[in-house]
This record gives sequence, C-alpha cells and structure tokens, in this order.
Amino acid sequence: MAGRKGVIGMLLKNVRLLTRNGDGKWSTATSDVLIEGDKIKEIGTFDHEITGHEVVDGKGMLAAPGLINGHQHTPMSLLRCYSDDVPLMTWLNEKMLPIEMKMDENDRYIGALLSMAEMIKSGTTAYADMYIGMDQVADAVTHSGIRASLARGLIAMDSNFEGRLQEAADVVDRYHGAADGRITTMIAPHSPYMCPPDLLKGAVSLASEKGVPLHIHLAETKDEERMIQERYGMRPVQYLQENGVFEQPVLLAHGVHFNEDDFNVLKNIKGGIVHNPVSNAKLGCGISDVKKLMELGITVGLGTDGAGSASTLDLFMEMKAASWMQKLKYEDAGVLSAHEVLSMATVNGAELLGLGGVAGELKPGMKADLILLNMNQLHLTPSYEEASLLVYAASGHDVDTSIINGKMVMRGRELLTVDEEKLKFDARSRAEGLLQRLS
Amino acid sequence: MAGRKGVIGMLLKNVRLLTRNGDGKWSTATSDVLIEGDKIKEIGTFDHEITGHEVVDGKGMLAAPGLINGHQHTPMSLLRCYSDDVPLMTWLNEKMLPIEMKMDENDRYIGALLSMAEMIKSGTTAYADMYIGMDQVADAVTHSGIRASLARGLIAMDSNFEGRLQEAADVVDRYHGAADGRITTMIAPHSPYMCPPDLLKGAVSLASEKGVPLHIHLAETKDEERMIQERYGMRPVQYLQENGVFEQPVLLAHGVHFNEDDFNVLKNIKGGIVHNPVSNAKLGCGISDVKKLMELGITVGLGTDGAGSASTLDLFMEMKAASWMQKLKYEDAGVLSAHEVLSMATVNGAELLGLGGVAGELKPGMKADLILLNMNQLHLTPSYEEASLLVYAASGHDVDTSIINGKMVMRGRELLTVDEEKLKFDARSRAEGLLQRLS
Repeated sequence: MAGRKGVIGMLLKNVRLLTRNGDGKWSTATSDVLIEGDKIKEIGTFDHEITGHEVVDGKGMLAAPGLINGHQHTPMSLLRCYSDDVPLMTWLNEKMLPIEMKMDENDRYIGALLSMAEMIKSGTTAYADMYIGMDQVADAVTHSGIRASLARGLIAMDSNFEGRLQEAADVVDRYHGAADGRITTMIAPHSPYMCPPDLLKGAVSLASEKGVPLHIHLAETKDEERMIQERYGMRPVQYLQENGVFEQPVLLAHGVHFNEDDFNVLKNIKGGIVHNPVSNAKLGCGISDVKKLMELGITVGLGTDGAGSASTLDLFMEMKAASWMQKLKYEDAGVLSAHEVLSMATVNGAELLGLGGVAGELKPGMKADLILLNMNQLHLTPSYEEASLLVYAASGHDVDTSIINGKMVMRGRELLTVDEEKLKFDARSRAEGLLQRLS
Repeated sequence: MAGRKGVIGMLLKNVRLLTRNGDGKWSTATSDVLIEGDKIKEIGTFDHEITGHEVVDGKGMLAAPGLINGHQHTPMSLLRCYSDDVPLMTWLNEKMLPIEMKMDENDRYIGALLSMAEMIKSGTTAYADMYIGMDQVADAVTHSGIRASLARGLIAMDSNFEGRLQEAADVVDRYHGAADGRITTMIAPHSPYMCPPDLLKGAVSLASEKGVPLHIHLAETKDEERMIQERYGMRPVQYLQENGVFEQPVLLAHGVHFNEDDFNVLKNIKGGIVHNPVSNAKLGCGISDVKKLMELGITVGLGTDGAGSASTLDLFMEMKAASWMQKLKYEDAGVLSAHEVLSMATVNGAELLGLGGVAGELKPGMKADLILLNMNQLHLTPSYEEASLLVYAASGHDVDTSIINGKMVMRGRELLTVDEEKLKFDARSRAEGLLQRLS
C-alpha cells in the first residue's frame, strides 16, 4: 500500500485511462500511471524499471478521475429511507426536522462516516458538505481518507446569529488545509428562505475575509420562490444578488426554478450550480434546466444531496438521472450526452469545490484522486463506447479501487480506512437510539 | 443444489420474507421457505427435521419475489451503448436498423443469453420478449433457466405477411409450455405504425385461436401519434381498438401519449400497460401517466425495453426511475410510492405475462421464483423501511441468489447455468463481427 514504509509511491500498470479531449469528449487509451506523494507524477508507458513503488496491476480496469459530489449533508445518511413518498413539506417539517433535532455529536459522526464510506465505495473521491457539527464531520474525513470541502450550515430566522457566524469562521480556521490538505472549507448560509439579509451579508463578508467560496441552496422549490416574493418582494436570485452573494465565488445547490432574469444574473457569477437530479425528482421539485445553464457558460456540477432525500449516494445514479431527465425535459435524446455528464461529475465539480486544475482529471501534477472500474462484467459487455457504458450502464458497485490524495482507500471493493462491519453496527445502534429518543 | 440426485427440494432458513399485505403494502418477517419441485410448498418456521432438502442459510438475506421484466428485446444486448445521445429517429433509422440487419442467428442467441444472464444477476426471474429469431431465444431461455413469454415480432408495410404470421404461430406451437413449463408465448404485432390493419386483424385471430395474449408497442412517441393520424385519421389507441386488438388480453408496451378518449378505452381492456421509464427517458419520449392509469384500475407493470435503448436491464433502476419520474410529472413526492412500484415489478408484471396467481408473490402453491438480497451492506444501512430501501437504495448488484422454477440459477452472485467468461468472450467477438460486416 502507498504510505507503507520504504514505498515512495504507486505504479498503476496497464489501465485504460479515461481522459478528456480538447473537444470535451472523453476517450480511453492503455497507459501506466506513476503516483508519488499525493500527486500524479507521470503518465505513459514505463518499460524501464521503477523501483520503490507499489505496483498495481490494472489490467481489465478503467482508470477514471474520482467523481466529485458537489452537494451533501453527510450526517443525514443515518436517516436513509426514514421518510419517503410524502409531500416535501411533510417530509421536512414533520419527519426530518424532529429527528434531526435528536441527533447528537456521535450520531453525526457515524452518519458522516457512513456517507463517506458509501461515497468511496461508489467512486466518489471528493465532496462538499453543509451541515452542523463540522468537528465530527472533519474527524470522519480524516478517518475515511476522502477529500472534502466543509461548511457549517447557517440558519437564522432572527438577528441572533453572531455565534453561528463565529462557528463558521472557526471551521475555516481550524480545518482549511487539514488532513494532509484534503480538507478545504466554505461558508454556507443555508438558503434564501433560511437566511435574513443580515446573515447573508455577514456570510459574504466572512467568505471574503477568509478567501473561501460560499455554498448555498437556491431555487429548489416553487415554495421558496413564493416565500421570498412574499417576504422581500423579489425572486430568490435577486435576493442573493442584492445581499452581495454573487460578489464571491459561489456553489449554488439545486437551481431548479429560474426565469430569464435569473439566467441573466447567473451567467456572470463566479462559481456555478450543483445539479441534484435524484433528490429533485424524489422530492417532486422539478428538473433544473441544465442545457440552458451550460449554453450560458455556467459551470454545472453534480451532487446527491443528503441520503435523507436521495436514499443513495451513488454518483453513477446521478449521472444517469441527469441525462435522462434533461432528455425528458427537452423531449430530445440528443440533449446532455454521456460526455457532458462525465464532465459535470469530474472537472466541473472540481471547479466548484475550488479544485480546478487540481482534481477532476488525470494529468501529471494533479492530485492522485482516481478510481479503477472493473469493466469485465456482463452488464458492461460488449464495449463500443466506454463513456456511454460508464454513464448509462455502470454503477458505483463496479468501482474496484479508489485512490485519494495518493493513498489507496479501497482495493477489491474492500475499504482500507474504515471497519465496515463496525460502522454498520454503529449506524444501526445509532438509528435505534434516535427512534427511542423520538418516541 | 436443487435437482441434485436424491435431493427433493430446498429449504431456505431464516430469510426475511417480503410479502404483500391486503392494503397493497409490502412488509417483511423472518421465516423459512420450503420448495419442492417448481413450487413453494410451505412457508413458516420449521423446527422439525426436514430431510432430503438442500438447506440454504438465508440469515441477513431478504427473500423477495423475483422481478418481472414486462418488455424486452433480448438479442439487442449485443448493441448496448452502440448508439446513445442522438435523436430517436436517427438512433432507430441510421444506427439500430442497419446493424440489426447484419445480426445472424448466432448473434441473436448470444445477445439473448447476455440479456438473460444480466437479468438474472440483477434479480429478474421472468420476462416478456418480442423480436425475431425466437428459436435462438428459446434455446437461451432453456439454457439460462429464466422464465419467459416469447413472441415473434410482426412487422409489415404491405400485405405480404402470411409467412410471418405462420412463424408467430409456430413459436406458440413449438414453445408454449417448453423448458419445464418456463416458456409461455404471445402474439406480437410490433406497433400501430409497423402493422397495417390486416396484419393486426390476423394477429388478433391468431392470438384468439391459440388462446395467448397479444404483446404490442403503443403510444411510445408523438411521431407515432402523428403517423397514425395521417395514415388512418385516428389515434393509435382507436386504431388498435378498431382492429380488434382489445378483444384479447393484451400487453401494451410504453403507453406514454394518451388523451382522455384513450383512457376511456383503456380502462376496459383485459391486460394492461408495461411502463419503461428508462428507455422512455433516454430516447426523450416522455413520462407515462402511471398515476392516472392506476387510478383507472389499469394494471401497470415495469420493463426495461431492449439494452439498445435502456443500456441496462436492472429492474431496480427502473423501479427508481418510475417513482422519480412520476413524482416529477406531478411535482408531488407523495405520488407512486415504493410499495406501488414493488407491485408493478412483481404482481402486476405476473398478471401481464399471464402468470397471475402463479408468480409475482411468495405463497404456498405458487412457482418458486425468488431472489435473496444481501441487505447487510453500507448503502442499505440503517434500515427503517425495507420496501423503501429496496426501491430507492438497493440495486441489482445486491441480489445474491436467484431461484427460478424451484432451481437455483445464481448463488453468491455466481451464475450456475451460464459460463460468464465464455459468454463475455462470445459477446465481444460477436460485436466485433457485426462492426466488420457493417463497414
């Protein structure tokens, strides 16, 4: 394993390397990958002897950039399938909020670790989190080996939020650059409807002061549109604009309900949208206009949202859902190709997490965040077009190996950083405890 | 294994059995299942000694009825991801039809076997097929151990179709009841736009004569609506009605584009609709109004369509897609629950395949068609509601064991009836050959 005494890196032999061409299309070619420290050192065919490296046989494997989940609330995995098939407001107010109120630090730690373990097992190597309890989430990131951008979610219905802003600042001060540089941070005012103007302004100042991006929910539901119109006499996008949110780089989660005025504002922002098609479908919110956003040059990434809504954290599922739903929206099978979807889940996600040029592609000098997929399977046979197979036929279960920051965190589908049996036991105990405290 | 000399059946010990309650909801309880011959003999807790039975330890497993795929073109697996992200008519006329013309009997056999292997591995135990080359498909059914309803697809743009009707009749005569009763048959006029009135009438007479249902594509695209309007001055549903199609039990595939007149006809048919949400999305066709169909009392099953469009034959994916898309259509998370979707993929599918009361549920006297799912996995943890976990979080990869017609066909994810390595090799060779003949 990388990191083993005397071993200075890893050499992946004979993988089929997935790379993005100048035209935005993805293609594969057989290659070796040399990893040293946390980075990809060289890509090519190494006939000469390379000593001191752990050699990984990649024959039959496709090496892809690790997927990037742009929007998550990791502790909510503890609430997977706790409430489904009810209207959104019932789900939120009668089911999720009461049980979330009962979650303690240990619950959040186990929920976060469960999410990270599931993400790694399904090919995700980096993600963005917004929740409370970032100390526990940071511990879980350190433990699991995943790369993360953490932010304390900021909610206030009154002016009493100074303490929370301080907590958000503490997360940046404490964790930005931690865990061998795997952790970065953001400032996360929750949403237009959960943040009064002063909180938004405070968050913007803090992000500016700390030099980190903002992470915020936007335009997820029609109810949000109505609420902001009633309270402030404007649309959610305008509300964020007037309070300075777009002066900073910003990761906007959801972006389902936009009109032409909104698009005109959004095309000039720094940052972009994280599309969460499964959550948006499962909660009946609608289909984001990804085609239009992309045509306007807006960066669109992909996310799962929390497991409390999406039920699954498999980004391969989100890639399928993104393409299917956009094709439905436009009644056109030619819309949002497998190639574009792959870019959303990799390069675009990296950009939105502040990792542009650092992760999301496999190139010398970039972080060694990559996955090996076992393509030698019935449901991936035959192979005409690997990008299509990856998006439309593969699933997170086909990921065999995961390397993050130059370290192997999964091999042969076995997590090397997390004790899976213990984690499942802990998660079940925590869920039982939650139900007991709720009753 | 069942069928082993001296072994008269199987005893599944300590499974969590998924059963449908009177209110249509699915729940689980720990139980044993005794299988003899091709049927479930008894369900309960067997403390007494049962001799002569292969004992299968089902601890940690959920036993569910095998899923039923109501609409398939199995040989098309050989064309998986051969053409994606192009408009439907380009996909069909410029990509699919030319390469399908090059397929020979061996291609169709390997494609069919590949589909069946993938279906078994993802939890499907019975399915309905419509294609040419049913001799090869029947061979693959016999070999793979799956249950199937086979029909020769009937296409004609002129009056020269007597030979084809004869072939369709031969399929019924030759295979109905074959493979230990696993094969049943249907008569399959392709679609309103591929069948002139006389062919439809001939197919209806044949189905009536043979006492088998009809299987036909209906209302898949807006183009179809336009074509039938132009040719016959009526809507596709009316066109089928006027030619006697609804006098027979009928399996209608797709059913995306219906108006109120159509619904008024459909609510009185024998049979029902097979919903193919992934194919309908991927080809940009639209979302079938499943909620309305169900409210009218119409039986709605679930299918994948061929792998040439859907890319995957995993019915767990279709279950997710069905629920997500209906929730999107109605902008209501309360629509089409996990319980309803489970019924679509089991009981309803059975009814549409002519297996009502015979398969689709796990009850004494019914066929022993069942799957064991490994629920002891991170992405299925914790467990509040197993029906939700199955539909929204599980995938075909979680199916550990498959028993069809009382015989074990997969155990520990290893197919017992098919040599997987040889099949992958054959499928790749066939695909290469096809491309060569095409160029």
